[in-house]
Amino acid sequence: MSTFVNNAWYVAGWDREVTETPRARMFLNQPVVLFRTPDGKPVALEDRCCHRHYPLSKGKCVGDTIQCGYHGLRFDADGKCVEIPGQDMIPKNARVRSYPTVEKYGWVWIWMGDPALADLSLIPNWWWCEHKDWAFIKPDLLYINCNYELVTDNLLDVTHLAYVHLTSIGTSAITDFPINTSRDGDKVRMTRWVIDRPAPPMYQKFGQFPGNADRCQMVEFVPPAFCVNFAQVADTGTGAPEGQSGTRRIEIMALSAPTPETETSTHYFFGFVRNFGIHDDELHKMVQTNFTNVFKEDVDVLNSQQQRMTQMPNAPEIDIKVDGPPNLARLVVKRMKAAEAQTKAPIESAAE
Amino acid sequence: MSTFVNNAWYVAGWDREVTETPRARMFLNQPVVLFRTPDGKPVALEDRCCHRHYPLSKGKCVGDTIQCGYHGLRFDADGKCVEIPGQDMIPKNARVRSYPTVEKYGWVWIWMGDPALADLSLIPNWWWCEHKDWAFIKPDLLYINCNYELVTDNLLDVTHLAYVHLTSIGTSAITDFPINTSRDGDKVRMTRWVIDRPAPPMYQKFGQFPGNADRCQMVEFVPPAFCVNFAQVADTGTGAPEGQSGTRRIEIMALSAPTPETETSTHYFFGFVRNFGIHDDELHKMVQTNFTNVFKEDVDVLNSQQQRMTQMPNAPEIDIKVDGPPNLARLVVKRMKAAEAQTKAPIESAAE
Amino acid sequence: MSTFVNNAWYVAGWDREVTETPRARMFLNQPVVLFRTPDGKPVALEDRCCHRHYPLSKGKCVGDTIQCGYHGLRFDADGKCVEIPGQDMIPKNARVRSYPTVEKYGWVWIWMGDPALADLSLIPNWWWCEHKDWAFIKPDLLYINCNYELVTDNLLDVTHLAYVHLTSIGTSAITDFPINTSRDGDKVRMTRWVIDRPAPPMYQKFGQFPGNADRCQMVEFVPPAFCVNFAQVADTGTGAPEGQSGTRRIEIMALSAPTPETETSTHYFFGFVRNFGIHDDELHKMVQTNFTNVFKEDVDVLNSQQQRMTQMPNAPEIDIKVDGPPNLARLVVKRMKAAEAQTKAPIESAAE
Repeated sequence: MSTFVNNAWYVAGWDREVTETPRARMFLNQPVVLFRTPDGKPVALEDRCCHRHYPLSKGKCVGDTIQCGYHGLRFDADGKCVEIPGQDMIPKNARVRSYPTVEKYGWVWIWMGDPALADLSLIPNWWWCEHKDWAFIKPDLLYINCNYELVTDNLLDVTHLAYVHLTSIGTSAITDFPINTSRDGDKVRMTRWVIDRPAPPMYQKFGQFPGNADRCQMVEFVPPAFCVNFAQVADTGTGAPEGQSGTRRIEIMALSAPTPETETSTHYFFGFVRNFGIHDDELHKMVQTNFTNVFKEDVDVLNSQQQRMTQMPNAPEIDIKVDGPPNLARLVVKRMKAAEAQTKAPIESAAE
Repeated sequence: MSTFVNNAWYVAGWDREVTETPRARMFLNQPVVLFRTPDGKPVALEDRCCHRHYPLSKGKCVGDTIQCGYHGLRFDADGKCVEIPGQDMIPKNARVRSYPTVEKYGWVWIWMGDPALADLSLIPNWWWCEHKDWAFIKPDLLYINCNYELVTDNLLDVTHLAYVHLTSIGTSAITDFPINTSRDGDKVRMTRWVIDRPAPPMYQKFGQFPGNADRCQMVEFVPPAFCVNFAQVADTGTGAPEGQSGTRRIEIMALSAPTPETETSTHYFFGFVRNFGIHDDELHKMVQTNFTNVFKEDVDVLNSQQQRMTQMPNAPEIDIKVDGPPNLARLVVKRMKAAEAQTKAPIESAAE
Repeated sequence: MSTFVNNAWYVAGWDREVTETPRARMFLNQPVVLFRTPDGKPVALEDRCCHRHYPLSKGKCVGDTIQCGYHGLRFDADGKCVEIPGQDMIPKNARVRSYPTVEKYGWVWIWMGDPALADLSLIPNWWWCEHKDWAFIKPDLLYINCNYELVTDNLLDVTHLAYVHLTSIGTSAITDFPINTSRDGDKVRMTRWVIDRPAPPMYQKFGQFPGNADRCQMVEFVPPAFCVNFAQVADTGTGAPEGQSGTRRIEIMALSAPTPETETSTHYFFGFVRNFGIHDDELHKMVQTNFTNVFKEDVDVLNSQQQRMTQMPNAPEIDIKVDGPPNLARLVVKRMKAAEAQTKAPIESAAE
């Protein structure tokens, strides 16, 4: 059974990162070169010339093709070799693997599994990114030396806010309130309301609440690796938990798309959408800086956690109550991997 | 058979290193967190939260406990989990391994094996550290990329002084004089008298001998890893070798306690005691600096030696005369390991 | 079957690199110490004291011998231990391996296999290095993180000039002309004439051709790892391809002697000989700088190529027309290895 879910979309890069200058990036242990053709189409190919293994990413874009920097072989967007300098005949097996790509929400998405199964509806529905009432913040990705499922664990667990993010978005009051876990098909949702407590420092800075606040934390997981972390903070006593609308509140969501690089490293793509001060550039920068810093606090934790796990691979572990949502998500992913393992070698057959 | 003697005391840190700020250090391949409770007791726990493997050393001390920096679990000095945020019930297996510790001679000692066997009398008797007629110099530890037994080899071999330490404590005259090896139970002792020769540069600096000197080198090894390197330098012809007292002489001892980190790395703790100029601060600093530099010369040698041994693990080796004491010490350690291997899994049973 | 041809000469260092200060270098996975005795003889010994594995290269030359820096054992040029401090008897097996060496063309050559088979006639005949009509340029070696056979591939392939060296010695016109491959015993020769084309930038700089040029590229491979890359550039239409002499032309040869360090790293020794401006110091420096920079372009390529091959060891590859010469060279080397494997453990028996 593979460590990864292959038949799924993953974020390969920000649209700004995929240009006519080839970029090397590894996904699911496979080296990939990303580039963009003159007509704007993003392309993802195996980053290895089929001739002598030189990385195509070290070459350059020539028209619609990428040219190997060693002997000049050129490959089109389908991975087919279209030119071999010094000879007319191009062997049938002169090709590299091509990966389906699509642009959505400012990201280039890649399908690492069987191309025949690439289904656009499997990209999570993050409509806020494209909606006029929401501002979309697009920070640079972070690199984490951990397995991608540790990122999911982290995102589906709001308890660590009180410890890892105490000075930013956490408060020690969090753990006094119960969490609610639910499942909708393969989606896992975790909800917690923190009632009548001071807003955490960063939300207070944005919301300027005169007194205590009611705060909703909701995380929705879409397999294999996507999470929306929703935070709503409202003046306490104004009915927010009961669904009252029209009260003063701020809403912000972190959208997470961690892409496995290897079993123990992850390209962490993420963005933020908010529905307050959406035309306020200064606020925009402040939110971007502050929340990216929050994520960097997690990166430090995840690096250390993976390091210890790698050192002691068979150490036992115990579960606690707040592990409900992450454990449910892991179960969903495990089942996806098992189902994928039952189909016959989906990747290899795709490569032929 | 383990690479290490588990049922033994090792130095875990200087007392000044073990504070209410947790410190991570690995001993015998096991990650350990060291901290001190408010009442001054040094604590050593497994440096891995039993929940999700985050290093406890990344957390903080809270009262008598250490709190995990990820989800806030707290552990007492026995390694028992005493708080899990968000739930009242604490599972019976919510615990991490706790290691016996004791403070002696300015060091915190740790017992890595079966706690039931931890016997304080096994700590070497280095009474000079606590005696008013001796001054105790406590340099920071050195880190060596070598197996700890190579340190013992080095300490029990005084021939290398003529090559590694020629400009400090060695003289090329050393190898003209025979060594005497003796054994007292598990202790190994090596003695050599160098008669009527110039004192080596560093001793000459301290002793200001008008002419040649008689010099005694004695090393006593206490398994699994402790050595006292005793040096006595006296005016020649004053009967020092025959045991005459009252002659002008200087005596200094290096106390070595190398603690294995892994099979190929060692925390090298050491100190010096001397019986001359014991209230002379300037001398104190000079001796500390000079002798620590001597030890750094050994560190360079040991790093290179281990590097070659790792590269060529099965290379043959020959023994020479001066290997008598180190080989005897290795034999003692080998027997200790074999005896330990015969007891049933002492560490695992201790952890339950 | 070994990864290397053992019974062959390899370049161990420039003569200027082998002095009375010992130098450590690894060849064919074996650590070697190089030094020179007072009478000028270059010596190559196993870089590991037979006593306790300390690298002899960390010691020093004493007379005709090298002395271990740890316990002072001394070894002569044959690897025989001639002194053990503190004892008179020297055990018969107190010796380290000694490798045959010889100086030729400004290089110290080493024979890593069975000393009994060391045959000076196997050193390639590079007479230009010693001839008064040629100037010999001797740049410092380059270090490449690749298998040495990738260097041979590179040298026997002149197609990459159009891509890797486009701005120096390549032109995109190259691949319009066919290559001719021939074999003479174990030698492989590749020839290509590029007719009536502009000289590449660097040759134009040296030759100042008024119009187009005829250019001959010839590479001769001598196993296991030596290449002469010959370049001749002449005014076009003056009969150079037909063998006319007396026409204005420049001739330059790169002499390559890549020595395997490990399976994936190589000490790349090389030099240049030219028959124009042989007393022009400024030209000398310019050629050295320019052509060394060309070789550095290859180093970048080879590092990346090996990195990908190591990452994906079983990836398929296709051959193209220009692979003829390199593939032939690989075949020759493969046969040499196979032949060597049939002799009984040539290295081990040599060490006894």
